[in-house]
Amino acid sequence: MSLLVIGTVAYDGLETPFGVRERILGGSATYIGLSASYLTKPVHLVSVVGDDFEQTHIDMLNRHNVRTEGLEVMAGQKTFFWKGKYHLDMNSRDTLDTQLNVLEHFNPKVPDSAKNCDVLMLGNLVPAIQMSVVEQLPTRPKLVVMDTMNLWIENTPEDLRKMLKKVDVLTVNDEEARQLSGEHNLVKAARAIRAMGPKILILKKGEHGALLFGPEDEIFFAPALPLADVVDPTGAGDTFAGGFVGYLDSVGDYSFDSMKRGLMYAATMASFCVEAFGPERMMDLTEDAIRARRADFAQLIQVG
Amino acid sequence: MSLLVIGTVAYDGLETPFGVRERILGGSATYIGLSASYLTKPVHLVSVVGDDFEQTHIDMLNRHNVRTEGLEVMAGQKTFFWKGKYHLDMNSRDTLDTQLNVLEHFNPKVPDSAKNCDVLMLGNLVPAIQMSVVEQLPTRPKLVVMDTMNLWIENTPEDLRKMLKKVDVLTVNDEEARQLSGEHNLVKAARAIRAMGPKILILKKGEHGALLFGPEDEIFFAPALPLADVVDPTGAGDTFAGGFVGYLDSVGDYSFDSMKRGLMYAATMASFCVEAFGPERMMDLTEDAIRARRADFAQLIQVG
Repeated sequence: MSLLVIGTVAYDGLETPFGVRERILGGSATYIGLSASYLTKPVHLVSVVGDDFEQTHIDMLNRHNVRTEGLEVMAGQKTFFWKGKYHLDMNSRDTLDTQLNVLEHFNPKVPDSAKNCDVLMLGNLVPAIQMSVVEQLPTRPKLVVMDTMNLWIENTPEDLRKMLKKVDVLTVNDEEARQLSGEHNLVKAARAIRAMGPKILILKKGEHGALLFGPEDEIFFAPALPLADVVDPTGAGDTFAGGFVGYLDSVGDYSFDSMKRGLMYAATMASFCVEAFGPERMMDLTEDAIRARRADFAQLIQVG
Repeated sequence: MSLLVIGTVAYDGLETPFGVRERILGGSATYIGLSASYLTKPVHLVSVVGDDFEQTHIDMLNRHNVRTEGLEVMAGQKTFFWKGKYHLDMNSRDTLDTQLNVLEHFNPKVPDSAKNCDVLMLGNLVPAIQMSVVEQLPTRPKLVVMDTMNLWIENTPEDLRKMLKKVDVLTVNDEEARQLSGEHNLVKAARAIRAMGPKILILKKGEHGALLFGPEDEIFFAPALPLADVVDPTGAGDTFAGGFVGYLDSVGDYSFDSMKRGLMYAATMASFCVEAFGPERMMDLTEDAIRARRADFAQLIQVG
């Protein structure tokens, strides 16, 4: 099995009610890759950083079997930087600073070793860049999963529509689903989005769990684990996606039933992510911790 | 088995994006009683109305085996009236009018036929009135469940604290739980509230489902069913409570495992309530419809 992940690798400045980090590793591909690395291998990462990017972070990714042949280091450029602040409810955040840096020139090149991947995970990026990755692959992967955001729904709707026809699964949050579909009701929004291309829609609702809408109008729900200590939600959505594609790539079964199990792994991985700042908690997980947490989730919805 | 329900019986004026009702049957005891009536009997209702209350509504309750010996009709007085407006997201509402009318003089009298109830459901009311009901019962019911709201948390905190020591299960929404406990995190809030008296806390999150916190720090989650057509959320929380106590009274098993099953019935009944205005949908349910909906819920969280 083989998973290819495209997305950002970044430095983030984070402020939550529980602390501050001036500069911490971040980016969608970082979270997706780390999360998936606990469930499958190899994980190929395609992204771009500046020459300020620390070798220790590349080493860390490699130690987790995240392969970085596709991580371009751009000389004379700086790594993408994002700074945000969360308030007490942590469901919304303020962006304080965005420095695109290398992202302005990002032209992803998929290494030969990753071109025959089974599963392709397109992290949130300009749709045209996502498309350029799809076009580099000689054969269509068995599963294509894509994330997107409000910015592309507003600014590049036509490119986004074209991309949607290329993917099996789209992951968005509830507000993005409403914006993309023009429907307030989420069941209707899911139907409208599935008519745009993706047979499957994953609706991420943060602390309220996630919904999986299937090709026959099936609905499956994975709760979020109520946690006493939520420190920083940054990356939780990407970690969720990483758990989903990591599980599916590991089993090679892309049926709707398999996706349900994948959603439970997605929720499990995301529950770890929020327990510490940035990707800190995602660097030191053990198989035992994941198994125990997965059992907590089963317990949460187990009718006695 | 026998269930005693105390709460309001009212007329409501309702406005949602899907329509308007100038004057429709409402009140917490109405919703709780109707909902429970599909799962257990007898259901004894204790409340108060004015002499403007229509006999057809009393007949309707009786047809559903909701016994109204404890429904006082106050001569020369008007029934409690509430008017509210919901916006598109339906998670919040504006109160447009409140006419307490008979509620200003409400002094509930539990009829003898209901004094030895197994389960007592105290709908949202002034805590002192809830207490007066508890004090009329010769023996403590096997299960006491109580609902409350922000108004009593703010205005009569001492009376509320006294009441909390008398109950087994408290039902509140997430904002009320935060307000009552002073904790933003819901896991910590639940612990703090359970230390005030109720061994069990039910946290209602509306369209995001409900959490059940148990005596040993257990957590169980019941999702809400994603529905394509939500017309009016009025009464959903009370209908939820009615499903919970109705189920528990019907089985006579008040263990935490039984409460988990009760929560699934609670969610099932609430999912019907929101499909029509006021209690309209709660008047014509069938056993088959309830069984089918209960199966939809099981399906929603069934990992394949």
